[in-house]
Amino acid sequence: MAKIAIVGLGLIGTSLGLALRKSNPDDIEIVGCDVDRKAAVRCMKMKAVHKTEPHLPTAVSGVDMVIIATPVLAIRDVLEEISPHLAENTIVTDTGSTKVMVLEWAAQYLPPTIAFVGGHPMAGKIDSGPDVAEADLFVGAVYCILAPTDSKPEAIQAVLGLVNAIGAVPYFVGAEEHDSYVAAVSHLPIAISTALVTSTARSPSWREMARVAAGGYQDITRLAQGDPIMNRDILLTNQEPVAYWIDELIKELYSLRTMLKEKPVDLQQRLQDLFLHAWENRTDWVIGEAQREQQSVGEMPTAGAELARTLAGEWVMRKFEMGKPGEDYRIRQERRSKLKQKKKGWFKR
Amino acid sequence: MAKIAIVGLGLIGTSLGLALRKSNPDDIEIVGCDVDRKAAVRCMKMKAVHKTEPHLPTAVSGVDMVIIATPVLAIRDVLEEISPHLAENTIVTDTGSTKVMVLEWAAQYLPPTIAFVGGHPMAGKIDSGPDVAEADLFVGAVYCILAPTDSKPEAIQAVLGLVNAIGAVPYFVGAEEHDSYVAAVSHLPIAISTALVTSTARSPSWREMARVAAGGYQDITRLAQGDPIMNRDILLTNQEPVAYWIDELIKELYSLRTMLKEKPVDLQQRLQDLFLHAWENRTDWVIGEAQREQQSVGEMPTAGAELARTLAGEWVMRKFEMGKPGEDYRIRQERRSKLKQKKKGWFKR
Repeated sequence: MAKIAIVGLGLIGTSLGLALRKSNPDDIEIVGCDVDRKAAVRCMKMKAVHKTEPHLPTAVSGVDMVIIATPVLAIRDVLEEISPHLAENTIVTDTGSTKVMVLEWAAQYLPPTIAFVGGHPMAGKIDSGPDVAEADLFVGAVYCILAPTDSKPEAIQAVLGLVNAIGAVPYFVGAEEHDSYVAAVSHLPIAISTALVTSTARSPSWREMARVAAGGYQDITRLAQGDPIMNRDILLTNQEPVAYWIDELIKELYSLRTMLKEKPVDLQQRLQDLFLHAWENRTDWVIGEAQREQQSVGEMPTAGAELARTLAGEWVMRKFEMGKPGEDYRIRQERRSKLKQKKKGWFKR
Repeated sequence: MAKIAIVGLGLIGTSLGLALRKSNPDDIEIVGCDVDRKAAVRCMKMKAVHKTEPHLPTAVSGVDMVIIATPVLAIRDVLEEISPHLAENTIVTDTGSTKVMVLEWAAQYLPPTIAFVGGHPMAGKIDSGPDVAEADLFVGAVYCILAPTDSKPEAIQAVLGLVNAIGAVPYFVGAEEHDSYVAAVSHLPIAISTALVTSTARSPSWREMARVAAGGYQDITRLAQGDPIMNRDILLTNQEPVAYWIDELIKELYSLRTMLKEKPVDLQQRLQDLFLHAWENRTDWVIGEAQREQQSVGEMPTAGAELARTLAGEWVMRKFEMGKPGEDYRIRQERRSKLKQKKKGWFKR
């Protein structure tokens, strides 16, 4: 019987509890801990944990693994507070959105007998809290694993077991690389979404603009409605990479607005090239995502799909012969339901 | 029996045909016209039109109303080509994404006997073409109506009838205002989405970044996968307003990156305020959208909801007492299904 403490019972912590209990109903005992008593009660009612314990040192004492699933800044406090109360050989991991500072805090606060391996599941929702948690949240999702160079093999193995148990796809990556990648594809989108809401909502014409805002505005501003504290912590702990990527985006936007202002003779062709190229890149990404999920259930990609990916530039061919992007999403959904049917044993150590 | 020609049988043209035939199965005859023969065949199979006619002058001759649903630049060509073939008192409208230039073209190419009233349904999908068309696409959506000052009342009445028939909500607006509002909430999002895909996809680390790109990246880049020709035409015909709004966004992003670079002592508080404020504004918009739809089915907003909207600043109250944003979406979905049940007579003139 493995004992696990989940600290932070929001969307991620509660979903982890649900996923672990689903994959391993008899072999584990999970204790949940959250400063918010209401969240703990909800999490207990959802049967995501076996019991809850509001006192953090008590919650983690004697457990085999601690999973910290709080906003990033709180991870530092949790590490500092639990450090003296952990049994020798406890494995500690987290689910924080940034990793360089988390790994530094772990090295600073945890004694050498405690193995820390960072984690970051690339799954989430805009709504937060235990109410929106799901056992299948991580199925097919990439789960970044950040193992410090001095990590014990059994600690890495245990976190890998956790990732497999919840149906996610492990991805080993360094902390610096992780933070720079997510700055581009996850934190820059948060910054953009927030900047768009801020600029439009302060316009004197906002009331009128709001009336004509439709699906496009809805999609692109969704991230601005994420948990403000989570977003604050993400930017605070990943300042340089996010600033770099904001600069990259500004360059691109500035070149577009200059084109629109200066009206070169080939403006029509240049705009068309810009949109065709973006269309291609986005389509490639969607197809790549579908293929990664295909591989994660052990299927080989078909020769046709591989070939198609190499035919960059021929967007028309792909649009009309390979099917619409929507179809790729459907393929993805099918893979997901296949994955959901798989059951995995976990934490047999 | 009213005769209608729909020119351009993509998502919007085909959906209009389906919606009109659903609301008025016996009183109208619709002829569809598209340069793409495959699209015309699909549209016919879907019973969105009664017949198709590839020759544009023939398609529009003798009809009571012409609806032009092509990408914006093609609207000019269509107006020029149909002009000599229209019966006196034919009403011409369009569904183009920008309006100043469309109204100019209409004044330039159509004879004074022909009434032109512009239109722009605020509904759409990322996928294009007749295959993704739906009879209920416009239900509950805002439909901008742009009536030139010399419009005949019966032409405005006919377009209003069209809007009501498809279950949309009419919104009278001037062409300049329209183009500046949609520049902010519809075209700027297209520019942002495209710029994000362009900057990330050209990074040497794109292969690795693509692996960790998840739901946030997916949401915010969706618009970059819209029809490249449609997007090109939108920016080409709305250059100044889009350039203005790109500048507004750049200002906001620049202020954020400067904050991250300069690390003021109150950075944590400033980031928190930024995200809280954006959260509030986005939530207000979502609630406002739900209320507009409520009003469009003739229900009065509740006093509680009105009061809540005035309590700006108390985001916590709204988050925890008024329910989560997701619930607003559910309210919206319920309104939509109510609206779908309503049947409306149309074009009884």
